[in-house]
Amino acid sequence: MAGNGEVVSNKQVIFKNFVEGFPKETDMYVKTSSVSLKAEEGSNAVVVKNLYLSCDPYMRTRMTFNPDPSELSSFVPGYPVQGFGVAKVVDSGHPEFKKGDLLWGITGWEEYSLIRNSEGLFKINHTDVPLSYYTGILGMPGMTAWAGFFEVCAPKKGEYVYVSAASGAVGQLVGQFAKLMGCYVVGSAGSKEKVELLKNKLGFDDAFNYKEKKDLVSALKRCFPEGIDIYFENVGGKMVDAGLLNMRDRARIAVCGMVSQYNLSKPEGVQNLMHILHKRIRMEGFVVFDFFNQYSKFLETVLPSIREGKVVYVEDIAEGLENAPAALVGLFSGQNVGKQVVVVARE
Amino acid sequence: MAGNGEVVSNKQVIFKNFVEGFPKETDMYVKTSSVSLKAEEGSNAVVVKNLYLSCDPYMRTRMTFNPDPSELSSFVPGYPVQGFGVAKVVDSGHPEFKKGDLLWGITGWEEYSLIRNSEGLFKINHTDVPLSYYTGILGMPGMTAWAGFFEVCAPKKGEYVYVSAASGAVGQLVGQFAKLMGCYVVGSAGSKEKVELLKNKLGFDDAFNYKEKKDLVSALKRCFPEGIDIYFENVGGKMVDAGLLNMRDRARIAVCGMVSQYNLSKPEGVQNLMHILHKRIRMEGFVVFDFFNQYSKFLETVLPSIREGKVVYVEDIAEGLENAPAALVGLFSGQNVGKQVVVVARE
Repeated sequence: MAGNGEVVSNKQVIFKNFVEGFPKETDMYVKTSSVSLKAEEGSNAVVVKNLYLSCDPYMRTRMTFNPDPSELSSFVPGYPVQGFGVAKVVDSGHPEFKKGDLLWGITGWEEYSLIRNSEGLFKINHTDVPLSYYTGILGMPGMTAWAGFFEVCAPKKGEYVYVSAASGAVGQLVGQFAKLMGCYVVGSAGSKEKVELLKNKLGFDDAFNYKEKKDLVSALKRCFPEGIDIYFENVGGKMVDAGLLNMRDRARIAVCGMVSQYNLSKPEGVQNLMHILHKRIRMEGFVVFDFFNQYSKFLETVLPSIREGKVVYVEDIAEGLENAPAALVGLFSGQNVGKQVVVVARE
Repeated sequence: MAGNGEVVSNKQVIFKNFVEGFPKETDMYVKTSSVSLKAEEGSNAVVVKNLYLSCDPYMRTRMTFNPDPSELSSFVPGYPVQGFGVAKVVDSGHPEFKKGDLLWGITGWEEYSLIRNSEGLFKINHTDVPLSYYTGILGMPGMTAWAGFFEVCAPKKGEYVYVSAASGAVGQLVGQFAKLMGCYVVGSAGSKEKVELLKNKLGFDDAFNYKEKKDLVSALKRCFPEGIDIYFENVGGKMVDAGLLNMRDRARIAVCGMVSQYNLSKPEGVQNLMHILHKRIRMEGFVVFDFFNQYSKFLETVLPSIREGKVVYVEDIAEGLENAPAALVGLFSGQNVGKQVVVVARE
């Protein structure tokens, strides 16, 4: 590792300009700059070497110009893409982080990042699990699945749970958490391979390929003849309409994401909202950032489950920053099988 | 009043057949039958003389053939329309009701009804307020406003509250309850007269005529520059879309009704559901029947407020069973100003 003060070359994935419709690889480009590996004197800044980067569907919303300060800020054209990642501290002015520490949190899509705002950084203390897990099961997607399922859905043993985008970074965990709770769980995904994964590796009771189903309402009815108590929603649009028609009384819909809608200039209309009324459905959006104060509680629950093999995690690993744009774009056509990670460096 | 055992003529409003689109007066007809005023020997049945009948938007859903036993049953073609009403007991086999008692609950649209299932009947013990109030503020719509606002919306002092269909049976109460809580309340309604009523008689902070607004999003933005915390939803469709764009973080939408959608064969699509996600909105449907066990608690709260003039109630009274079909149908074009009641008899 380079020493402090040194200026080194820094490969970066630059966000070119705001995106309309589906993002393309060419909405980003790779360039090489240089960076000082010294944190500014007297600052709280941290300089990190990025190891693993996380590709997450929510990043699409940051690719659109968004002037509303209450929402996630947009990426800045001409600057590196930002996202969650795992990194190693190279230099630090921050009292809580020292050289050599591993951390996860918001970083840049580049080899080295100067992080001035360390609020969103978590120190990694457990390294007996794959480091990349801190972009997934032990990072933001893991917290999302945990908070969304346990806090928002308030599940009870024996309930019927439906997870859309079920083999993704969040969905695969929701399904496993639900099984640990004693629920009946069905997932949908977009390929035969993913459906097999759900049934054979991730322990879902049943799964179906939504791309093969002309009629999503009937597909769900076949999987849930008694109806759905909990619908963990990652997809939006037509899937919500089909879900609403299959909900039971007092069902809950946790709105975690609506990936099918992110690239549309005009979102699809959802027509079956009336069912919210007479079925007393609670539909609730949540944002994982609200739950980060519970991160250590979450870790205490999930780490033992990983170590004991009670929870597994499927990752889709892309090698090298050069392949990061394709990996990110691939999320929106379902190219990834499991959590999409980009390896920048392994140590 | 006719004595027990007597057979008398019985004017009835008969439901002709299942309805598509907007209901018309001719979907019902008035006929005269005869009825025995004696409750069957050894039964729990109650024979009542109907005094006031309630016209409520939810009744539209009973005019459609509905095979789902978990939903409200359909009206039966050839039989009287059913709905909430105030009635006087003529004869009773039920231990809790005796001749001369006043009650409110589900009855028939006719002069006399034989009620075999008395589960949904409440005895009226307070007659220092207008009896018709038991079809409104002290009956189902009152419970709906109370449970929907206090239980579902969980309001806090100072919050911004929006009520659609605000001068209706439920809306006018939600607004007044919200003012008593110290909230800022804006209502929308469909005429200048109703808007004046909201502002001058019902104490709303502001109100607008949605029919005069081409752009509902801007109309709401003008009324709520800081956004909406609580949206009490009676309307559905475009109003939901406009509301979603004006919600604050952690806002609540109580879905009480969607009257604009009841007459459409294909409901309007709601496009802005994405806002549920990043604003952490909770959208929740509720059904007043779930709260009827709290009726006496509700009465203890609301009766004093009526007596002290802290809450007022606007009724639109139609005289006579012959005018009941028009009164009911008028709900769906907003003919009524305030709670629509039909007087069958005054004692």
